[in-house]
Amino acid sequence: MARGPPAAAAAAARGPRLAGVGRALLLLAAAATFLPAAESSCPRDNSLVRDISQMHQSNYGREGFSHITVAGALAHGMKEVEVWLQTFGPAKRTPIHRHSCEEVFVVLKGKGMLLLGSSSLKHPGEPQEIPVFQNSTFTIPVNDPHQVWNSDEHEDLQVLVIISRPPIKIFIYDDWSVPHTAAKLKFPYYWDEDCLPAPKDEL
Amino acid sequence: MARGPPAAAAAAARGPRLAGVGRALLLLAAAATFLPAAESSCPRDNSLVRDISQMHQSNYGREGFSHITVAGALAHGMKEVEVWLQTFGPAKRTPIHRHSCEEVFVVLKGKGMLLLGSSSLKHPGEPQEIPVFQNSTFTIPVNDPHQVWNSDEHEDLQVLVIISRPPIKIFIYDDWSVPHTAAKLKFPYYWDEDCLPAPKDEL
Repeated sequence: MARGPPAAAAAAARGPRLAGVGRALLLLAAAATFLPAAESSCPRDNSLVRDISQMHQSNYGREGFSHITVAGALAHGMKEVEVWLQTFGPAKRTPIHRHSCEEVFVVLKGKGMLLLGSSSLKHPGEPQEIPVFQNSTFTIPVNDPHQVWNSDEHEDLQVLVIISRPPIKIFIYDDWSVPHTAAKLKFPYYWDEDCLPAPKDEL
Repeated sequence: MARGPPAAAAAAARGPRLAGVGRALLLLAAAATFLPAAESSCPRDNSLVRDISQMHQSNYGREGFSHITVAGALAHGMKEVEVWLQTFGPAKRTPIHRHSCEEVFVVLKGKGMLLLGSSSLKHPGEPQEIPVFQNSTFTIPVNDPHQVWNSDEHEDLQVLVIISRPPIKIFIYDDWSVPHTAAKLKFPYYWDEDCLPAPKDEL
């Protein structure tokens, strides 16, 4: 029995071990989550293979938040896609924002809500609330104002985020009634600032 | 102590629970890994949120392999990025291949080798062997011939894969000595075939 069981049985038997070994990705992010922002620096690294547990992690001034640029335009030379690992503490949210790039989330743990406003009205309006959960994936329609919210009061929400056309250009809304034309461009975004200083006005 | 501990202590305390809850993503893939290919169909689904454990999974004729298109061009309407969840059984490999899109791997579990040939010689030549491991990330230089190999004899290798400009156009090499000009285009690729039938010759 120990050698060469049928494929399905072997897969089932492998399950628990798989899960046991698979903890590390989550553990590493958990251990370093919510530490104060580290020193300001652009962690450029053109290595082909990088250990995520050794990569620069920061909350970028947002309490209960953690971000790692796993593969990025500015730090790692990506031109077409960028990958982030983010953790949101209980009740934490992204800003309400929009962007013209594609965005895919893979929920590694926790649960929450995708709040999705309208891009066809003059302002986002009352958002739809769409539940997201561990082991789900969701995509953000291009240019739709949205917010990701860890709606749980106890558990973290951890996501891998994939965007196209980095570095990201984000328009931020103070609330859902702000007109699209009044949303504020934040570029470079917080985690890109150290690598791409904001342009200075020249008089 | 139970309420409002310092952030770092809270994060540390949260660690084990985080990992415990985080098993499901890996479990689901483990449970369905290496089952025979399911019925042939294009699982189109334009839902904003999808449960990965309910998504179409197949080995596409490769023993000891499992692929899920988590967010895809043909099934889910992505235009700029695509995300896959793949599992390689012990000793299993991708074909030797190249593509002009960007590609990022995140290793969820297991370990293996990235074999990387040259794109500047007439053929790939003797590849570099670069170790990859759980919780690492690696990127494939555009157009470089490469192969991902689960070099472990016992454990699965599970990866999330992100590509740009889907659907993928792959050139396959039978071995490392095949000239670049003789590599064979496989398009649509196996997991895209059901959604995008191969063009038929018209006489």
